[in-house]
Parts: sequence; C-alpha cells; structure tokens
Amino acid sequence: MTKQKATNISWHKGEVTKEDRERLLQQKGVVLWFTGLSGSGKSTIAHAVEERLFQRGFLSFVLDGDNIRHGLNKNLGFSPEDREENIRRIGEVAHLFAQSGIITMTAFISPYRADRDRARQLLAEKEFIEILVKVPLDLAEQRDPKGLYKKARQGEIKEFTGISAPYEDPLHPELIIDTGEKDIQESRDMVISFLEEQGIISPNKQ
Amino acid sequence: MTKQKATNISWHKGEVTKEDRERLLQQKGVVLWFTGLSGSGKSTIAHAVEERLFQRGFLSFVLDGDNIRHGLNKNLGFSPEDREENIRRIGEVAHLFAQSGIITMTAFISPYRADRDRARQLLAEKEFIEILVKVPLDLAEQRDPKGLYKKARQGEIKEFTGISAPYEDPLHPELIIDTGEKDIQESRDMVISFLEEQGIISPNKQ
Repeated sequence: MTKQKATNISWHKGEVTKEDRERLLQQKGVVLWFTGLSGSGKSTIAHAVEERLFQRGFLSFVLDGDNIRHGLNKNLGFSPEDREENIRRIGEVAHLFAQSGIITMTAFISPYRADRDRARQLLAEKEFIEILVKVPLDLAEQRDPKGLYKKARQGEIKEFTGISAPYEDPLHPELIIDTGEKDIQESRDMVISFLEEQGIISPNKQ
Repeated sequence: MTKQKATNISWHKGEVTKEDRERLLQQKGVVLWFTGLSGSGKSTIAHAVEERLFQRGFLSFVLDGDNIRHGLNKNLGFSPEDREENIRRIGEVAHLFAQSGIITMTAFISPYRADRDRARQLLAEKEFIEILVKVPLDLAEQRDPKGLYKKARQGEIKEFTGISAPYEDPLHPELIIDTGEKDIQESRDMVISFLEEQGIISPNKQ
C-alpha cells in the first residue's frame, strides 16, 4: 500500500461539480479500463471507440502505455514495485479525467487483479468499467505488433506477461471482448452499445 | 533530470487530434499555471475562473495541491526531490489534460523556476500560460487561510516558502495578478480577458 506522506493539506472542493460538467458535455465521466495481453487489441479498440465517440460529439481521451510511459511514468521501469506504481498513477490520473467529465479510456496490460481493483476503488460504482480484451495467447503471439513476444521467447525481455509472468483474469469484468472472434469494428460497437445501455452516452446524439 | 527507464515502447498516435477536440469544445486546450506564495489566492482565483468559464459553456479543470496531494502524489513528501517530482508529475498531467482540449489550471506554489520551465517545455508556445499571483508576504501571512504561516514561524513546518525557503519569481510570466490590489472578481476577469485576447475562448460565447 502507498503511504500518505503529505501532511498540512485539506481537500479543496471546486465550485463546478462533476455533474455540472456532465450536463455541459451531455455524457457521464467514467473510466473504461481495458485489460488484457499484449497484442490483444486494447489500445486499438480504445482509439476506435474514441473516434466513434468524437464523430457523435462526445469527448473522450485514451491513456495508454505508450504515451504515459514517455511522460508521467518515464521514471518507472518494469520491476514489480514500478509496475504497481505505474498502474497506481494511471488509476489516479484516470480518476481526475473522469471527474472532468471525460469518457476516459486506459489501455494497459495491467495483469494484476489487486492493482486494477485499487483503480476501481477510486471511482463510484458504475463509473469504473473493466473491459477484458481476451485473445488466445498463440494469436497474440502471431500478431506480435511490436515484436515483443519474439524477444520474450528469446529471453531478451524478462517477466513478459503470458510468457514468463502471469496474467490474472478479472473475476467480474463489466464487458468481455474476444478479439479472436470479433474484429475491431465489432469490438468497438460492443463498447458503444454498452455505453448507451448504461446511460453514459445518449443513443439520440448521433 | 528524470531518467527514461522504460524501454520497448513506441509512441501511439491517436486518431482524434487535439485540434479535433478543440473544435468540438470551441476552445483551445491550454495550461494556466498559477504560481505564488501560500495564501496569495491561486486556488481561489482558479476556481473562480473555472466557474465563470462553465457559465459560458467552456470546459476547464483545476489541479491543485490539495486534491493532487490526496491522490496522484500522496506518496510524495516535502523533501527537495519529492517537491521536484511533485511538480514534474503535475506538469505531465496538465499536459495530458490540455491534449484532451480542456482549459487546465494548476494552482501550486511551485517556487522553483526550473521546475516551472520544465512544465512549460512540455507544451507548445502559447499553450502554457504562467500566471504569477503576487501578494506582499505580510498580507499572505495575515490571511493565513490554513494556519501554515503561523506553524512555519513557530518552526513546526520547516522549509516553508517565503519564510524559510525561497520563492523564485517568474522572469517572463504571461500574466501578473497582484491580489494585494485586486479582489477575486477583478483577478478572475483579468484571466478571462487574457483568454479572450489570446483566442483561447471566443468573446462571442457568453
């Protein structure tokens, strides 16, 4: 657990609430937390959802390993402690984004249940939507968009999720997308439909 | 300098650009970086600006010491290294928020020029607006909204900016607000006028 070191602080309540911003944007501020193996399609689906939401006039933003690693988390490596801190910071930033009213998507392997559950606990019920992007390992390895599986098999990358490090399936994800069976468009539409069903976006705003 | 530890990463370019989001929101995504002594009025002005922007249909969000310290930066204390990391993370998060199209405000003492300049460098020119909130030390100490000056004078808080730790004035801030002379409403209106003059918000959207 992360210790609270900072003292002499008090919570500053803004004048404009999350609900105010949601009315302005005509959407709910939530976190869609995509989790799954490297090569499962998390980031690709998230960006496809972002594009579709934009076309319909909704505001969303994708936090993914690639852009977060270059910025906020560039001082973290891949040790167990750093991986945990990586996901902790992402959870906190996603929480801030959701407070601003944005439909926030995070696309990280995030292999550990405990880390994802901590991110969930920062948000109200129904504001954290865990999306398991499932794919058979052999298919992910066949896609290998960044050549990482090859390096992992050759021992050049240690503790690689699915090869030499575990992936813990979510026990109760809000949504499961099997990209061994669904293509990107179908996967995207599953997410959009879920957002409509949950009242996060209005089906009437096209 | 923060070292880049993470390897095996590549920049993922989203389909929806900052400019797309700016068109959707009818505003520019920028960072208004408020800096100044404790008690100068940074957070108060930022929240007043947020409220006025919301009334006019613009989306903004305030990151301030109080809410960031409880979340993202709760594992940082007040050592020199932790203070630098505190401002570094805030700069990175503000950058992400600005990318999402939001008028992002940060309200932190941020006493060191080098730390603020690093935050500036993450953004394009005209996207980082440094606002010095000036106040005579004796007036800030008289206000002492959190009782911190009193504790600092009694030696209960060490290295307190203005008392026992330095504050480095910005050399070329985009805006200077003297809250010894201006009240909150005047201070707020100075910021709003600046945003209009710079084309960050439209004067026509009331």
